[in-house]
Amino acid sequence: MRLLKVDSLEEARNKLLRAAEVIPAGIASCTVQDALGMILAEDLIANESIPMFRKSTVDGYAVLAKDTSGASETIPSFLQCIGEVEMGKPTTLKVAPGQCAYVPTGGMIPNGADAMVMVEFSEPYGTGQVAIHDSVSPGRSVINIGDDVMAGSVYLRKGKRLRPQEIGVIASMGVVEVPIVRPWRVTILSTGDELIPAGQTISAGEIRDSNSYTAAAQCEKYGLDVVDKRILPDDESTIRQAIINAKENSDLLIISGGSSQGKKDMTADLLDQLASPGVFTHGIAVKPGKPTILSVDEESKTLMVGLPGHPVAAMIIFELLVGWIWQKINDIKNPPSILANIGNNVHGGSGRTMCLLVEMSESPAGWVATPILGNSGLLSTLTHADGYTLIGANQEGLNKGQTVEITVL
Amino acid sequence: MRLLKVDSLEEARNKLLRAAEVIPAGIASCTVQDALGMILAEDLIANESIPMFRKSTVDGYAVLAKDTSGASETIPSFLQCIGEVEMGKPTTLKVAPGQCAYVPTGGMIPNGADAMVMVEFSEPYGTGQVAIHDSVSPGRSVINIGDDVMAGSVYLRKGKRLRPQEIGVIASMGVVEVPIVRPWRVTILSTGDELIPAGQTISAGEIRDSNSYTAAAQCEKYGLDVVDKRILPDDESTIRQAIINAKENSDLLIISGGSSQGKKDMTADLLDQLASPGVFTHGIAVKPGKPTILSVDEESKTLMVGLPGHPVAAMIIFELLVGWIWQKINDIKNPPSILANIGNNVHGGSGRTMCLLVEMSESPAGWVATPILGNSGLLSTLTHADGYTLIGANQEGLNKGQTVEITVL
Repeated sequence: MRLLKVDSLEEARNKLLRAAEVIPAGIASCTVQDALGMILAEDLIANESIPMFRKSTVDGYAVLAKDTSGASETIPSFLQCIGEVEMGKPTTLKVAPGQCAYVPTGGMIPNGADAMVMVEFSEPYGTGQVAIHDSVSPGRSVINIGDDVMAGSVYLRKGKRLRPQEIGVIASMGVVEVPIVRPWRVTILSTGDELIPAGQTISAGEIRDSNSYTAAAQCEKYGLDVVDKRILPDDESTIRQAIINAKENSDLLIISGGSSQGKKDMTADLLDQLASPGVFTHGIAVKPGKPTILSVDEESKTLMVGLPGHPVAAMIIFELLVGWIWQKINDIKNPPSILANIGNNVHGGSGRTMCLLVEMSESPAGWVATPILGNSGLLSTLTHADGYTLIGANQEGLNKGQTVEITVL
Repeated sequence: MRLLKVDSLEEARNKLLRAAEVIPAGIASCTVQDALGMILAEDLIANESIPMFRKSTVDGYAVLAKDTSGASETIPSFLQCIGEVEMGKPTTLKVAPGQCAYVPTGGMIPNGADAMVMVEFSEPYGTGQVAIHDSVSPGRSVINIGDDVMAGSVYLRKGKRLRPQEIGVIASMGVVEVPIVRPWRVTILSTGDELIPAGQTISAGEIRDSNSYTAAAQCEKYGLDVVDKRILPDDESTIRQAIINAKENSDLLIISGGSSQGKKDMTADLLDQLASPGVFTHGIAVKPGKPTILSVDEESKTLMVGLPGHPVAAMIIFELLVGWIWQKINDIKNPPSILANIGNNVHGGSGRTMCLLVEMSESPAGWVATPILGNSGLLSTLTHADGYTLIGANQEGLNKGQTVEITVL
């Protein structure tokens, strides 16, 4: 290991992208009901057209458009009604010139007809005759076969994160099992003699573990599958065994803690010893988040991320590296980021990429992103943050009013 | 019933807000691990301070700041080291003038000391003496008791939708069970003789049900609890019985279908007959979404929403009314909407609020929202939509380049 140089965010991301290729992609399957938020693993090709038949968008009469030519409120066309189409049923009716047939909204348009006249513009007249008071052009109020989706076409592209509308479209294609990207299995370890789980009484000198909870919730947010999550004492053999277990059970190991120098070294040493080729990034030029460690084991195909022990830095580094790599490798399109004017002057990161937490507010000129000041070390600041913006390592800083891109947290 | 006037979106929302008050609010409880996306039902008050003790942010020596006055690289101050604080343990050490104590990052600062000197600026010197090469001011590298959260203060406000950072903060306060807003129990009914569930073979004239899948996924998105979901034929007694069941089991009934006039009337009549005071909105001036029905039964405390049968309209009306009322009544703050320039001229809704679906793209001048053209009746258009903007009923339309507010879908 012995990496003396701290990586820039871009360098760390590039290395991470190469390293993450060891994790087998894999396709899982889930029912359409359970697929919300999942990532489509394959292009979906339509087995059938939507609609499968010519369909009316109104209640009314299926006609030949040319039979209605010149018809109006005062001078109707008279057509012979040959029957009624039943909703949800196929029809064998055939509309010939001078004829029409009643079709409800969503009903199948009989052969021969090429347009619909709304029932509001019709009037029954004598024996089976209908007076048509509207002149319609061919195709009026008709949805053609495949207008929505044509059989054989790709109707959803792989990599799409499934929202309610995609769930609806998939269901409407008759698909019950959806091929989704297999979520990475994640082990989360929080290390530290001072860490007490939530729910236990705390004594002076101890602090409660929050990193494992935040990281587990972040995994849930990104659709990753947490298979193990535990707090460990600062004991080398215990941590060693936990890393060995994680290599067997997980695609990704997230380990946080070791906030003092000696313990940080122990974590880094173990992530290097127990992996091959081992640690490839030891320290990144990101504020906050410097003490980040990245490692990979090619044999067990496990990616390893040592998060900073500091809760704010740990959360940010998860977003910037773990969330980033999962989305990048699966080519997931993010929701659009928000452009905002920065509310105060901000100094640059002086050679480090700075992750600036902001609170959003509205103004007549658009969104204002107010930097969250004070000790960014405080966990509670995270709950006020609506999002963040990155200030480049070589950027001088931000001037009040300057436009920045905000990623919503 | 017999409501002849169509409501504006604002009128419908105001009535819905009053009607939704019949649903008992109720507080549920879930573990902190399972609370992601849930809505906090009560203010959370800190039982303990974070930190609970004065804490060092560096590895180094706890000192009295005044003892380091004038110390530098060349002229150090010499202090007597009285011991070492162990991580995660309380300390009984007391630092007197002329003394110091070693404290690791995150460790407890002994009484008497008021600042930390980083280990990099120190040097062991003879028997228990330490040379200090830095002059620090009081408070340097010290986090005081309650700096993050003070015992007795509200650290999270009710109505907050819990993100990973709030999960972390709650865990760090030692809270295991979180009071959350009880999700509404929802019954979803899709009616129509022509509807076939996903997974079954389809014949000419039939279409697949997609509305119940989309609505169920939208419920999931908003954290609502779907207790029943089924497809029903256009049979009055079957639908009647299903509505009666929903009144017993649910806070909210969502019923879609009945796209032809006669069937729409049947649904509206049943939602009126089986509820008291019954239907209060029958038709809204929203495009798409006109045939929307809103009803309430005060005895069973059930809100009833008849969505349009049309899949695109059904999804949009769910967002504009169901999603809206759930967020409104719980005072949930939405993620910031996005300001974008509209990509084309758009005609106004001519007396109706128009929900315009858009695709987002980036330009040097910011986001461009391109209206999704063509037949908005097509289900597949929803999968291309990144969001929507509302054009007011009395608005003339939009001019290309005009700034609009986009809600992400």
